[in-house]
Amino acid sequence: MTISLIELTKKLINQPSITPKDHNCQNIIACYLKSLKFNIELMNFYDTHNIWAYRNGQHKQKQQHTTTLLFLGHTDVVSPGNTQNWKYPPFSGLINNGVLYGRGASDMKGALAAMLIAAQHFIQRHPNHKKKIAFLFTSDEEGSGKNGTIKAVQQLIERNEHIEYCIVGEPSSQNKLGDVIKNGRRGSCTGKLIIQGSSGHVAYPQFLINPIHLTIPMLFDLMNIKWDQKNSIIFPKTSIQITNINTVPANCTTHNITPDQLILNFNLRFSDQSSIKSIQNNINKILSMHSLNYHIYWDPCISEPYFSNPGKLTNVVTNIITKHYHYNIIPRLETTGGISDGRFIAKTGSEVLELGALNHTIHKFNEHIKLTDLKLLSYFYFKIMEKMLL
Amino acid sequence: MTISLIELTKKLINQPSITPKDHNCQNIIACYLKSLKFNIELMNFYDTHNIWAYRNGQHKQKQQHTTTLLFLGHTDVVSPGNTQNWKYPPFSGLINNGVLYGRGASDMKGALAAMLIAAQHFIQRHPNHKKKIAFLFTSDEEGSGKNGTIKAVQQLIERNEHIEYCIVGEPSSQNKLGDVIKNGRRGSCTGKLIIQGSSGHVAYPQFLINPIHLTIPMLFDLMNIKWDQKNSIIFPKTSIQITNINTVPANCTTHNITPDQLILNFNLRFSDQSSIKSIQNNINKILSMHSLNYHIYWDPCISEPYFSNPGKLTNVVTNIITKHYHYNIIPRLETTGGISDGRFIAKTGSEVLELGALNHTIHKFNEHIKLTDLKLLSYFYFKIMEKMLL
Repeated sequence: MTISLIELTKKLINQPSITPKDHNCQNIIACYLKSLKFNIELMNFYDTHNIWAYRNGQHKQKQQHTTTLLFLGHTDVVSPGNTQNWKYPPFSGLINNGVLYGRGASDMKGALAAMLIAAQHFIQRHPNHKKKIAFLFTSDEEGSGKNGTIKAVQQLIERNEHIEYCIVGEPSSQNKLGDVIKNGRRGSCTGKLIIQGSSGHVAYPQFLINPIHLTIPMLFDLMNIKWDQKNSIIFPKTSIQITNINTVPANCTTHNITPDQLILNFNLRFSDQSSIKSIQNNINKILSMHSLNYHIYWDPCISEPYFSNPGKLTNVVTNIITKHYHYNIIPRLETTGGISDGRFIAKTGSEVLELGALNHTIHKFNEHIKLTDLKLLSYFYFKIMEKMLL
Repeated sequence: MTISLIELTKKLINQPSITPKDHNCQNIIACYLKSLKFNIELMNFYDTHNIWAYRNGQHKQKQQHTTTLLFLGHTDVVSPGNTQNWKYPPFSGLINNGVLYGRGASDMKGALAAMLIAAQHFIQRHPNHKKKIAFLFTSDEEGSGKNGTIKAVQQLIERNEHIEYCIVGEPSSQNKLGDVIKNGRRGSCTGKLIIQGSSGHVAYPQFLINPIHLTIPMLFDLMNIKWDQKNSIIFPKTSIQITNINTVPANCTTHNITPDQLILNFNLRFSDQSSIKSIQNNINKILSMHSLNYHIYWDPCISEPYFSNPGKLTNVVTNIITKHYHYNIIPRLETTGGISDGRFIAKTGSEVLELGALNHTIHKFNEHIKLTDLKLLSYFYFKIMEKMLL
């Protein structure tokens, strides 16, 4: 199969694989990897598609365990939102002025294509590479993730697969491609809060309980919580974001009725200086300080913080990037940003490192990637393969 | 036409006349009043139906202007909301245990039926009443009202109609029918506030502007505004209610994206110690104290406070109610509650008095009226006619 990096990126972006849908991405990838003589296994659980693909090194027969370098990624994307806010249709993969636009361009179909093309070049040049190269892509990284990487990794562990090194294609870069690489992430937890009031006519405040008015002082206090006891040395500090707030009924046409309920969702990213327990205690304390009739629901999908000790892989990646930029940029090793499926690999004892596109447009309208960045990312992945697999 | 008070109330409730719809209410009323030899005029403006009906007294030919007693009301109702929250279908007018349920039972189809049946009894007993009795009902009192009573009154003024006295059928009563009568109302103004943020991934707070987080401290200050310089001696104090709050996009499925905008609507009821100008100044001051990218829209439909000096009509009504309750209840003259179309009549110099059903279920699920209250209200209206029209 001959396809260019740009063509493959576009082909993946053309699939509207909104989480947990894969659409046709993993089929495209399977065809591609089959042509490179990879072993392919589809590990589908419920609504989630996972693809596990590997190519043994030439030491396969001689050694029980060859070293494995895994490239981890996801084919799903977040919703494009109101498509009218996009300059170009979000699944078109249109190129303008050296920039490729589309949902997933940076997070992370661009990176998937860059890995796959890098593998093609690597195998063409080194058909008898010594060590094992593998890919694991899921279609549910942006959603609950409960049938994604976590389940696939479970199966791999049961078969005694050892993954020594793992590159995650998440968009780690900030201003220049490769300026930031990541070896950990904060934890994440999500909750929903319902404040119950009693609807009534605005002119009779004595006969109504306005849930908005009750919630304002509580939220004011919530915004001022100091979550961490002290600053973490490996993670950014714990932070909360209220992701939506809505009143019920919507009362969009009549403006003389107050609502019955206020519903809000929130998410916290927490360092090793907080825990799900300390967070819940903090929030429960604030709630109990205010006279509220409330229900709080905690999403059972909680991500604990993960941290992977830097080793050979980190050293290799840092050298490749630093040399490319002639020592003008030395990658910063960070633990910022959202969760990533790297946490499931790190748990198995692998050295995990995240290296991907610039992240300033991810999950936004007009997500894009520069073509020069796309090509450079593929070059970095190629160089990592050369340094780790020969 | 022979129809009982209960039948007529049910028949009106059966019309789903959600503002500004009249459905078939005014036709039913017109047929009824025609049979009582009223002159009927339909004054329809755009989407709003208004019915003006009058019956001259016997002095008609001799005097240029006979005294007129107007009964003012509205055939429209607010939306029933989620009908699943009703014990009985909201437009069924079902009776259970001496209570009639339905949207409009108290606000104010019950009162309309009570007025009409009172008029029938009055005319039967006093076919040669001396003074003029009139009805003016609109189908847009609960909505913007811009094509309702205000326009009909304009036409009447142009024809030199003089309305000396006006009873408004709005639900004035609090605990016992007639315990509260009203001779004024606070003003009302409505606004919409849009706080602009910039959507982003929760894990990168540095790349997003969360409009919810920005709005909380502003709302906290807004809740603590002291609107009136001093307490009014005729009106309850000025109060604000936020009637809804919503974020855009709704982000109902993904909880890692913050919204772009927060939109809220609010309404103020204001005394003679505030004005639309002082209210706008107060809100603008709070907004400018917080670093917000905002737009505020003021609904051009502003109701100024109205107050009608008590005179003969108030005296008559007070006596009727007081005597009925053997001096155990003396009606309190108040200016509480929402706006009413009484303000348009008061402007012409009439003595305006509001007397209607209990208001604790209006605009709520399971709105209802006791049958004994319905009958008593009709009796009060009948007695007012006898005292004012002979």
